[in-house]
Amino acid sequence: MVLMRLRLDLAYDGTAFHGWARQPGLPTVQEALEAAVEQVSGEPATVTVAGRTDAGVHARGQVCHLDLGQVAQEKVMGRSEQPVATALLTRLNGVLPPDINVKVAAQVPAEFDARFSALWRRYCYRIVDSPAAADPLRRGFEWRSPGGLDAVAMGQAAGLGLLGEHDFAAYCRPRPGASTVRTLQELTVLRPEAGRIELWFQADAFCHNQVRAMAGALVAVGQGHRPPSWPAQVLAAGQRDSAAMVLPAHGLTLEQVAYPLDSQLAAQAAAARVHRGSLALPGGFSPDSGA
Amino acid sequence: MVLMRLRLDLAYDGTAFHGWARQPGLPTVQEALEAAVEQVSGEPATVTVAGRTDAGVHARGQVCHLDLGQVAQEKVMGRSEQPVATALLTRLNGVLPPDINVKVAAQVPAEFDARFSALWRRYCYRIVDSPAAADPLRRGFEWRSPGGLDAVAMGQAAGLGLLGEHDFAAYCRPRPGASTVRTLQELTVLRPEAGRIELWFQADAFCHNQVRAMAGALVAVGQGHRPPSWPAQVLAAGQRDSAAMVLPAHGLTLEQVAYPLDSQLAAQAAAARVHRGSLALPGGFSPDSGA
Repeated sequence: MVLMRLRLDLAYDGTAFHGWARQPGLPTVQEALEAAVEQVSGEPATVTVAGRTDAGVHARGQVCHLDLGQVAQEKVMGRSEQPVATALLTRLNGVLPPDINVKVAAQVPAEFDARFSALWRRYCYRIVDSPAAADPLRRGFEWRSPGGLDAVAMGQAAGLGLLGEHDFAAYCRPRPGASTVRTLQELTVLRPEAGRIELWFQADAFCHNQVRAMAGALVAVGQGHRPPSWPAQVLAAGQRDSAAMVLPAHGLTLEQVAYPLDSQLAAQAAAARVHRGSLALPGGFSPDSGA
Repeated sequence: MVLMRLRLDLAYDGTAFHGWARQPGLPTVQEALEAAVEQVSGEPATVTVAGRTDAGVHARGQVCHLDLGQVAQEKVMGRSEQPVATALLTRLNGVLPPDINVKVAAQVPAEFDARFSALWRRYCYRIVDSPAAADPLRRGFEWRSPGGLDAVAMGQAAGLGLLGEHDFAAYCRPRPGASTVRTLQELTVLRPEAGRIELWFQADAFCHNQVRAMAGALVAVGQGHRPPSWPAQVLAAGQRDSAAMVLPAHGLTLEQVAYPLDSQLAAQAAAARVHRGSLALPGGFSPDSGA
């Protein structure tokens, strides 16, 4: 059987889902997507994802892959003369619920692995800190801070000792057997307009709760409860600090996942597996999930 | 009794409302806002609005006014030492549902009339015309076109004979006794990013359904079903044309309402009343509503 590997770029509103990963009896993005693939391909499907988002977390740039056999490919194409990927895009969007959208579908080499080939993930945490800026149309993906925040102090904190490779245990919900060492490549505090703050996080991968806990530490600085040097002190101490609130899930969106050129896919996947100690954890809990 | 006139700038998600204007037994923005004012002021309230949006239409820059007597003012202030407007902002946002937000509250002269002092209204109709751009997080306020649109042709149409003062009867749902003469001051077709189109409309006022019907005419051009000269031909013919579909309400947002300096408020209100023939229609249906 000739398997075709397909990459899907996804956007979803996480509000109604209990996160990405399948859970018995609960609506999840994975379940909805796999059901849609099965509906249009006629065969059970398993999708592998770049970032296993938590309950209520959204995505604009999620990436996953799946394999289709010959019979499934023909069923997807039907009588159309389009390539399998093009037909799959149209047909999936025709059956998916309105809170999930396939943005792009493309055939990729068998070495492409949405999870292990990824170079980095980028998340944005969105905050509104003024009633004058509050926008009911965006309330599903912005967290409303109860008071104004000092974005300059938050930006100072972002530049003090957080970037680079660290053990982020102080900002992670631990998972047995999984490393909490990550490389934070970007941490930017923006005020795109008055009353609105965006926190952009980019890393090779994130451990569970990491983005929301780090965002909470920056908010404590923005509220003036802690000095700009404090988030790095928490990191260095290596233990969770109750003053670093884990912010609500609905403010968080997975915006982008980056991959290497096709020729480097296999090498990147091998390096990621070894580096994050995931060879010992086939399937199941992923250390780069639930940011 | 010393009445204080207050201006409220509002944003709301129109999804769950049967429009602005009160209707027996149906949830409306007016009813929700007036109930909130009564709750915090202890007295029944009537608010007058700039744009009576239709069912499902949103607002980011809606404006209304209301009057509070001395007792209501004291109740709003409570024990706070804040000005009445500041206290009203905080207390209203505390009791309003999450899909309505008061952005600004300010005391204004008694001559300020949210409806009749307005110089112009500005609406945006948002369209997504590519699956790759579809964003489930914004699906509540963007209309998804079933196919790609030629935004250049739509921009050409916007520049051909639509701007200025015309009888817009061809694009209005008629209301007895109300003029359909309006001055369209701006009509701009933007592609802010790939796969997304914004149609910006500014006029002294809009008649019922006008923005959605004109947007539908531009879409017929964008689909290639009609030439760029066609929307102006429909306007000149003065009769509704079934090829100009009235687009769905959820793509439309009232973005801004402009007012003159305080010293010109009364003059502007008198001019608007005479010009749009609304002296004959106290209360009830407004010719500048339901865009």
